Amino acid sequence: MNSTIPTVDDLRAAARRIEGAAHRTPVLTCAALDDLSGARLFFKCENFQKAGAFKFRGACNAVMALTDDEARHGVLTHSSGNHAAALALAAARRGIPARIVMPENSSRAKIRAAEAYGGRITFCAPTLSARETTATRIHEETGAVMIHPYDNFFVIAGHGTVALEFLDQQPDLDAMIAPVSGGGLLSGIAIGVSAASPGMEVCGAEPEQADDAARSLREGTLQAARPGETIADGLRASLCERTFSILRQREVKIITVSESEIVQAMLLVWERMKIVIEPSSSVVLAAVLKEKEHFRGRRVGIVLTGGNVDLEKLPWTK
Amino acid sequence: MNSTIPTVDDLRAAARRIEGAAHRTPVLTCAALDDLSGARLFFKCENFQKAGAFKFRGACNAVMALTDDEARHGVLTHSSGNHAAALALAAARRGIPARIVMPENSSRAKIRAAEAYGGRITFCAPTLSARETTATRIHEETGAVMIHPYDNFFVIAGHGTVALEFLDQQPDLDAMIAPVSGGGLLSGIAIGVSAASPGMEVCGAEPEQADDAARSLREGTLQAARPGETIADGLRASLCERTFSILRQREVKIITVSESEIVQAMLLVWERMKIVIEPSSSVVLAAVLKEKEHFRGRRVGIVLTGGNVDLEKLPWTK
Repeated sequence: MNSTIPTVDDLRAAARRIEGAAHRTPVLTCAALDDLSGARLFFKCENFQKAGAFKFRGACNAVMALTDDEARHGVLTHSSGNHAAALALAAARRGIPARIVMPENSSRAKIRAAEAYGGRITFCAPTLSARETTATRIHEETGAVMIHPYDNFFVIAGHGTVALEFLDQQPDLDAMIAPVSGGGLLSGIAIGVSAASPGMEVCGAEPEQADDAARSLREGTLQAARPGETIADGLRASLCERTFSILRQREVKIITVSESEIVQAMLLVWERMKIVIEPSSSVVLAAVLKEKEHFRGRRVGIVLTGGNVDLEKLPWTK
Repeated sequence: MNSTIPTVDDLRAAARRIEGAAHRTPVLTCAALDDLSGARLFFKCENFQKAGAFKFRGACNAVMALTDDEARHGVLTHSSGNHAAALALAAARRGIPARIVMPENSSRAKIRAAEAYGGRITFCAPTLSARETTATRIHEETGAVMIHPYDNFFVIAGHGTVALEFLDQQPDLDAMIAPVSGGGLLSGIAIGVSAASPGMEVCGAEPEQADDAARSLREGTLQAARPGETIADGLRASLCERTFSILRQREVKIITVSESEIVQAMLLVWERMKIVIEPSSSVVLAAVLKEKEHFRGRRVGIVLTGGNVDLEKLPWTK
């Protein structure tokens, strides 16, 4: 199971598993953003999801899928943010401990959220190797089951439920677009859409400062992340072999956007839609506005992935 | 018609008149705010209304109710904000001009919104007498029909539609609470609730810095506003004889809250619900949190009135 790829049946099983625990989030529209984009936009509001992000879908599915024996010593992950809070909440629902390794430069709002749901946090240096070493040590000490933020069968299947739910609410979309970081969400969506609505385009949006998915799919081989800083703090991870192969096989198109395009799109959503989304969510609207010709006149489903922001420190205030 | 009081039938006529033009806004819930308040809260999201506030209901009803002859020279109002944008949008839908007198200290976001919908703005000193003098002059010059922001039969009836819609979406409420300024919204709600759901409590929430409604209802006679500054820029107006008599007859309870309670409640809604509301909306949650014992264990309908905020200048950032 640990290296295999979920099918749409696994997504449907995940949907049953998380039903009642996860919110069925609303789909909003906005006439002003339709005018601006020249397309008809539908926004799936996962910023209203439990723990403020889509991550709860995958984390909850993974925690609920554990046997009692597996769950006995709790769960463990490394995450810079939303997966941490989501896993802590999912574990709390099951009554088991969640141990979280977080890079010390994680957003304050995200640290507070993981703590508020009862996560036991260990900080580490902000590198992938520090995250993995620390997690391995805690696993050896406690026996907690590692729930990787995206390289995990049940996490991908859980995230994919958002596509099935979105298509159920809005069946007549021409394209669906979501952010890509480690690729768990976008992979799950690609699996769901290609089965439930074959022929519909699936796109990913990525910061130029963290463009490994775009480069990997262009080159046809998995490319390493390049050092770079993006305001989209949820999009700093890189594809793994599993998510890369899913995206490649389904011919997912990736659009990259600049930092200022991300901030402008975020401000537009707050101003016009009156909802709070984080920069990692606004990459998607930024991508649709950047490639206007590609989307013009089409019905586009946008996954707004999360709303966990440090409200004291907004990118458009100095 | 100009001094009479609408009945629930006038609210129903207003609902038919604005159907399709105004949004049927969603009702959201939030487990974290239920826990914090000890009550079960239902939030009617008029911050998602056209032009970002409930004001469009009344303005649209008033503009649509005009005969062609009355509408010929356009409409006119004085308003510090949301009514201005709402009237401009309603007039634009009917293809007639909207002339708006705004105090020069109006929020930048609200000035931009009124302009964006095509309102023709005249600035004046920030006093009621300057607003009225300027409006009278423009009426004499242009023949535009004055649509008062709250002392207007059709505006009150239009605002009251929010109560009927809310009760249709959530029939089992024990109380409904909304902000009070000039009292147009709260009067419309009191009319709707007392007819559709007699016995349900109706409350108003008001800043301590603009507490004329609380004082007027306590004294039994209309009290003048006291000079004071509140962050709730939409709540600086005072009751008129018409709204005072409606609220008095229906025994509406008024709760006053401090400036810091308003800001804290606003931050809570942004953080926990991931939606953008303005300070004039958060007075209501502040009031429910202040009078916890009064609301404990009850099902409370909260009208979130608007989401038009200067995002560059938030009250919790310095």
